[in-house]
Amino acid sequence: MMTTFSDEFFMKEAMKEAEKATNEDEVPVGAVIVSNNRIIARAHNMTECLSDVTAHAEMLAVTAAANFLGGKYLEGCTLYVTLEPCVMCAGALHHAHIERVVFAAEDTKRGFMRYGTGLLHPKTTISSGLMEKESNAILLSFFQKKRN
Amino acid sequence: MMTTFSDEFFMKEAMKEAEKATNEDEVPVGAVIVSNNRIIARAHNMTECLSDVTAHAEMLAVTAAANFLGGKYLEGCTLYVTLEPCVMCAGALHHAHIERVVFAAEDTKRGFMRYGTGLLHPKTTISSGLMEKESNAILLSFFQKKRN
Repeated sequence: MMTTFSDEFFMKEAMKEAEKATNEDEVPVGAVIVSNNRIIARAHNMTECLSDVTAHAEMLAVTAAANFLGGKYLEGCTLYVTLEPCVMCAGALHHAHIERVVFAAEDTKRGFMRYGTGLLHPKTTISSGLMEKESNAILLSFFQKKRN
Repeated sequence: MMTTFSDEFFMKEAMKEAEKATNEDEVPVGAVIVSNNRIIARAHNMTECLSDVTAHAEMLAVTAAANFLGGKYLEGCTLYVTLEPCVMCAGALHHAHIERVVFAAEDTKRGFMRYGTGLLHPKTTISSGLMEKESNAILLSFFQKKRN
């Protein structure tokens, strides 16, 4: 059963963001940031429409969450993201002192976990695999359409 | 002798950006991005005034350069930055396929070189140490004032 404040509930919200990215012809990755069981930021990958490699879902969400909180640190916050963060995003999450990172699908090529957990802040906890199949399906579908 | 288009000329411009950061009570790091001997982006650290951990000089410069060029890739461009980029910024520079990175002072605590050169794109070349003393002096002065 999915309760309102479960990890699954928030990951589903991140998946909705990934679907928005698909509709905008962006690589489908979505993210939400949660504080006290409330979504304070939501974003999807916008690298193509902004022509900006820094416009990953996680980066936009970190900036939006800090703006919402009025401070640059995201202590006590959880990031839910549909794909394993890359090195750039892991670096930003380290700077932000985020409390917890929950990601769905692994990114074996570009994911930060290639470097172990050391790219994140020592206090940050990590969970992975939730809704992995759904995230992989939306990514696979996107790249298959691109190839055809 | 410093010629107009030397590395030293462009690093001096990055230092001017670092000085602007000092005047705004930001950790003094400055950057410029050069394409065909022309500065197409200049930026300094703005993490405090924007309350945003992602607002490092390099990140702002990458976004500005892509905006100037009208495309997200910075092939053929050189980044001059007064301090060794962190992991987040190295990740962004990787995504941008930047041709060359020239940094002044080392950052032994947070610099990307702790992980070797693998965080940057395989085609990116790296130079360091130019104006290292000047950059370290401005950083030291900033943190000493902060402590007093």
